[in-house]
Amino acid sequence: MTDLTPAGAAALDAVDPLAGFREAFVHDDADPDLIYLDGNSLGRLPMASVALAEDVLRRQWGQRLIRSWNDGWFEVPRLIGDRIAELVGAKPGELVLADATSVVLYKAAVAALKVRPGRTRILTDDLNFPSDVQVLRAAAQAAGPDHEVVILESDGLHGPVDGLSEALGADRGADVALVSLSHVAYGPGWCWDLATTTRAAHEAGALMLWDLCHSVGVVPTDLGAADVDLAVGCTYKYLNGGPGSPAFLYVNADRTDLQNPVRGWYGSDDPMGFGFDAGPAAGASRFLTGTPPILSTVLVEPGVDLILEAGIDRLRAKSVALTERFVALVDLHLAPLGFGVQSPRDPARRGSHVSLRHDAAQAVSQALVNEARVITDSRPPDLIRFGFAPLYIGFADVDEAVRRTAEVVESGGIDRWRGVQPVVP
Amino acid sequence: MTDLTPAGAAALDAVDPLAGFREAFVHDDADPDLIYLDGNSLGRLPMASVALAEDVLRRQWGQRLIRSWNDGWFEVPRLIGDRIAELVGAKPGELVLADATSVVLYKAAVAALKVRPGRTRILTDDLNFPSDVQVLRAAAQAAGPDHEVVILESDGLHGPVDGLSEALGADRGADVALVSLSHVAYGPGWCWDLATTTRAAHEAGALMLWDLCHSVGVVPTDLGAADVDLAVGCTYKYLNGGPGSPAFLYVNADRTDLQNPVRGWYGSDDPMGFGFDAGPAAGASRFLTGTPPILSTVLVEPGVDLILEAGIDRLRAKSVALTERFVALVDLHLAPLGFGVQSPRDPARRGSHVSLRHDAAQAVSQALVNEARVITDSRPPDLIRFGFAPLYIGFADVDEAVRRTAEVVESGGIDRWRGVQPVVP
Repeated sequence: MTDLTPAGAAALDAVDPLAGFREAFVHDDADPDLIYLDGNSLGRLPMASVALAEDVLRRQWGQRLIRSWNDGWFEVPRLIGDRIAELVGAKPGELVLADATSVVLYKAAVAALKVRPGRTRILTDDLNFPSDVQVLRAAAQAAGPDHEVVILESDGLHGPVDGLSEALGADRGADVALVSLSHVAYGPGWCWDLATTTRAAHEAGALMLWDLCHSVGVVPTDLGAADVDLAVGCTYKYLNGGPGSPAFLYVNADRTDLQNPVRGWYGSDDPMGFGFDAGPAAGASRFLTGTPPILSTVLVEPGVDLILEAGIDRLRAKSVALTERFVALVDLHLAPLGFGVQSPRDPARRGSHVSLRHDAAQAVSQALVNEARVITDSRPPDLIRFGFAPLYIGFADVDEAVRRTAEVVESGGIDRWRGVQPVVP
Repeated sequence: MTDLTPAGAAALDAVDPLAGFREAFVHDDADPDLIYLDGNSLGRLPMASVALAEDVLRRQWGQRLIRSWNDGWFEVPRLIGDRIAELVGAKPGELVLADATSVVLYKAAVAALKVRPGRTRILTDDLNFPSDVQVLRAAAQAAGPDHEVVILESDGLHGPVDGLSEALGADRGADVALVSLSHVAYGPGWCWDLATTTRAAHEAGALMLWDLCHSVGVVPTDLGAADVDLAVGCTYKYLNGGPGSPAFLYVNADRTDLQNPVRGWYGSDDPMGFGFDAGPAAGASRFLTGTPPILSTVLVEPGVDLILEAGIDRLRAKSVALTERFVALVDLHLAPLGFGVQSPRDPARRGSHVSLRHDAAQAVSQALVNEARVITDSRPPDLIRFGFAPLYIGFADVDEAVRRTAEVVESGGIDRWRGVQPVVP
């Protein structure tokens, strides 16, 4: 039996092999009680990033100036890409940092549609990011008036596994060019079976494009073993790369037919030749376009290093233990207060955040943030998301977050926060 | 008569109203002799950016964490955009920071082609950035197989003014959808007459899309008065925004027909509604796509503030005086050593850098950088660029750069640098 008392949490923290990583991040000494459960939206600041930023700013930009492009800046999108590649089962050269996630998703989707000229449908689901759906529609529009995005309907909790099978079935799948899904859904935290789903897309003759934003750094992923065609993801959630840090794009090395629709100098095979007719660079680099934002790009590395050092399997094991404990405590203490777990009960089908349903979700989240020192966020219409980044969240944090959530409801503290709008990417 | 002796330079520096701005930038105390003439490629680090970066990193990200999106991050691309708008004659809401220059150029070009469905030609010239030409070709390809980019031929020094007139003439102009040019050419520094050229494009029924990378912050520009349709530019050259800092995109408020082809959540009218069917945001914001790289974006402001404080007319006057002096000194001291001025002689048709032609241009530039402490860069096949950012370059710097250039050639110091490849965006 799991010990759901604070003593039980303390016992788990005492033997947590990753406990020491908490100290690798900056904390606010003036606010020691803060529990940060929004690492699924913006990861914490690694200590190493502070020193690195100082060096990039004062020495690399301030003193070395333009010479820093020669000193190493030019290769940064590829070098950090290769580090993230290690994490997601990609080969060197298959993954680069570039642009915002929505921009690389556009490039990837347009490229995929181009190599399936006879097929007009893109499949996604209603658990996907609205931005992804908007981008997929833009890609469909770019491909031609006959193209369309089909949004498969879920139950709001689990991905539409059967609906996808059906849509890829013998009679209907022949028209599908691309399947694009979020590996872990930003709302309920549903986690698709990446290998099985990719295989189903391929069996229908479609390409598979994954959005790894909510899974990279916390759910083990082997893009190579699953033969995924394309994947994108952001680096500012569990990878702790900083606000709006660049996205990554993975392009399977075997898919040499895929071409960047937004070609620019940074993705050419002769970026310093200044010719008009340079060809595409090799590997995923051919999908680069313009000059990368160096400060925001360079700072991706310390967070990725920490994830690699901790090890994705240990991170996943702790993540599952944290979310399992949270679900059990919610059932015990918060269900009587009107909260319901709106994430899959099966940890194998769940990412590292758990969503709770509540009639006053937004007010609860705002009260937690502003009064109870528990940073969570809310998503329409009625979800509060609790994100458990295993690098810096402990078991005692889980217990304490549940206790404070009960408190803000029982004390009536949520009432003054009704109608206050959050803004959270 | 201009006094071309060092005493003449000192006299000009003594009365320079902008001289004090040099101290607003970080300099390397360990390398006091460095003369930085590559501000046209990467501007210097403003002192204010150091303190700002510290705050963004440690407090805004490190302590405020996700709450900083509410505290102000969300509006940064628009707020800084409005500051740059002041500089280029745009109205509030017409200009936003986003993406890399090549990416926003793609969005702008695709949007323009969409509103000229019957026309199949994009005009540009061979002085434009190779990346721009590649992007325009990508936009043409996206528009359909009948679309093409016509690259007008220059003499390598002056923009093809007559060639453009001819291509826009009554018999041929009816097929032109878009004219896209660099306001100031990265190579020779040729500066197009923005208003006249825009008018010519409009008279032919085409849209006008300017790349202001090499002119913003140093050449007065009134996009509104010229009724320019679209413009892009980078913020890391004369605006001193930092390496690879985001581009800006200007969309004329009257051109409500132009739509972002790469739609994503950040450009929607309901970014926090999490719906699939949100419409486009108002103004240039509708061309935003994904989450911006906050560190690289926020740091654009201090440099823009300095430019606005100095005043674009004073900056232009000093820039012209600096380049005029440089040209005169080159004629006097460097012409006998095999250098030729490869920039327009008319300062009205020249930006703030001057290019010199030399048989061993790349080796000269490398020797200047590595031995003579004069940072310049080279561009194929035989150009050395000397950039004079009027905010932090003085008249004595001009004289000294010429003296050291003569020295590296006369001493034979360039020989060991033949064949060394530079990498400079």
